[in-house]
Amino acid sequence: MMVLTKDGDTQQMDGGTHKPRMNALGLDLGGTKLAAAIISNSQLVTEVKKIPTPKGADKIVEAVISLIADFQKDHLIAGVGIATAGVVNVETGQVIGSTGNLPGWEGTKLKQIVEERTMLPCHAENDANAAAYAEVHAAGLGDKQAVVTITLGTGIGGGLVMNGKLYRGQHWAGGEVGHLKIGMENKRMCTCGRWDCWEAYGSGSGFLRTSKEIIATIKPEQSALANKLANLTNEMVGEAADKGDPVAHKIIDIWHEHVVTGLVSLAHALDPYCFFITGGMEKFVNFETMRELFIDRSLPLIGKNVKILPATLGTDAGMIGAGSLVIDSLVTS
Amino acid sequence: MMVLTKDGDTQQMDGGTHKPRMNALGLDLGGTKLAAAIISNSQLVTEVKKIPTPKGADKIVEAVISLIADFQKDHLIAGVGIATAGVVNVETGQVIGSTGNLPGWEGTKLKQIVEERTMLPCHAENDANAAAYAEVHAAGLGDKQAVVTITLGTGIGGGLVMNGKLYRGQHWAGGEVGHLKIGMENKRMCTCGRWDCWEAYGSGSGFLRTSKEIIATIKPEQSALANKLANLTNEMVGEAADKGDPVAHKIIDIWHEHVVTGLVSLAHALDPYCFFITGGMEKFVNFETMRELFIDRSLPLIGKNVKILPATLGTDAGMIGAGSLVIDSLVTS
Repeated sequence: MMVLTKDGDTQQMDGGTHKPRMNALGLDLGGTKLAAAIISNSQLVTEVKKIPTPKGADKIVEAVISLIADFQKDHLIAGVGIATAGVVNVETGQVIGSTGNLPGWEGTKLKQIVEERTMLPCHAENDANAAAYAEVHAAGLGDKQAVVTITLGTGIGGGLVMNGKLYRGQHWAGGEVGHLKIGMENKRMCTCGRWDCWEAYGSGSGFLRTSKEIIATIKPEQSALANKLANLTNEMVGEAADKGDPVAHKIIDIWHEHVVTGLVSLAHALDPYCFFITGGMEKFVNFETMRELFIDRSLPLIGKNVKILPATLGTDAGMIGAGSLVIDSLVTS
Repeated sequence: MMVLTKDGDTQQMDGGTHKPRMNALGLDLGGTKLAAAIISNSQLVTEVKKIPTPKGADKIVEAVISLIADFQKDHLIAGVGIATAGVVNVETGQVIGSTGNLPGWEGTKLKQIVEERTMLPCHAENDANAAAYAEVHAAGLGDKQAVVTITLGTGIGGGLVMNGKLYRGQHWAGGEVGHLKIGMENKRMCTCGRWDCWEAYGSGSGFLRTSKEIIATIKPEQSALANKLANLTNEMVGEAADKGDPVAHKIIDIWHEHVVTGLVSLAHALDPYCFFITGGMEKFVNFETMRELFIDRSLPLIGKNVKILPATLGTDAGMIGAGSLVIDSLVTS
């Protein structure tokens, strides 16, 4: 193990077999906010700056450039890593598929623009991939055949790291695990316009839909949630469960069934070392319950071996991963 | 491209950058038959010998040893590759998970026994993996990020080749794609004892179950299949469809829905270059229909890019892959 001291802004070689120690700026671009911090040795070394995500691709790009300039005032930066929603061609650094959260973002030549404007090397990466990269290396699991990081947020994202490297797929769309099918009955339409995607059930918005479906069928005597249907949030269900509300418990149990179904499918395809679970809905996961369900629904070799673990880096993972990816690209290229 | 002439039994170097040309014995061990042939340069170079699979691990091993000795009478063999049903630890060559088709097979130290008894290097591999390896290299797709080969037989098997190499998973159980979940309604139990696995629907036995469910509800005026329920086979349904029987067409349409559901899940996890479809049920696949369904149920980047293709090697794939794997292990080790 390498013991590291933070040494501010200077670039310095550790010598021997160690990697050069560099600072990168890591940015995480989501539908609502743009966050950035200096990353070194897979850790944040400054406070995180956050601004609301501007509307429109041009304004987003300007905000990114401006954040980079801000950080350059106080820090020497070896490169810029950007974790962005949407599908990214990592070779060209172009956003080739976008999400509804970033209208007009598809087509943006993110890497090229940033490199031309800042003269710094840039690595642009899908945000779930960047987060997965950070989590796996933070956990020291870069030697495992496969680790799958699942982000349970408004949607479901996935990142697959194999032997320490991101697997991105033949067309840069690997890890779009939110659109695994977990039913054939055309029961619930996904935001993608197709039926019965995992994301329509196992995500935060899926949780809310399940909650509303169930609460619409109950009487106020059964749960106080019956009177909260109009303005229901997932947090209300979580708080009710904490107070012992049986309807809330039922909802959470069903959601665990929904989540585990996708995990079981992924596990039988990939037989990973472990799953890391992250995202805003991770706090609703009872890992013991999830594990029991997983074992029950898996072949013995899978069920007994594949771990399901909480991720550790939280909302910083995308920034850390993006920063680490640009540094690693400089070291190995 | 290298143009090859078959030169009988001698081992010979091609010189230059070419691989050494070696013969290996490839064996394919299934629940009903044990098949073997000499493999060179990823092709069969002898007739295939087939014997019924004996009952019990000891007798199977003796049959394997005996087949090897038979081929050695006429051929110089550099190694033995064995494709077997069940999960194999490829490092030790031990069968660590078996299938119902080979009772008592789990635990067999296949590689070790064969090497000790024959003094030849042996590579033991899961049969779906061996077949996938052969198909990918036969198609010249060893440079693709991922190719997924799906065997639609009595069950569903899968093999994942990434950049020309087999991906076997952290616990040797990767590619157990038959146990992806395609439903949450506990409607159909799989042979594994769990509910709503892909294999319970998309395999040959799944096809038969779907056929029986549908035919049990129809009247003889609707289809001649109504009178064949007791002894129904998939072939009868196929023949009826060829004659324009609407019930048979309905069954085949539903089965396409079942098969595509698993393909869509795998595609969104892995974004492969293509799927190869093989196995006894491949002849029931209408590739045009499958492709339309696949596009309809996939994100655009996946649907428009990921191909679904018939595999080309048929039942020889396992033998060829096993033989190639042992040769490749000799060349690269």
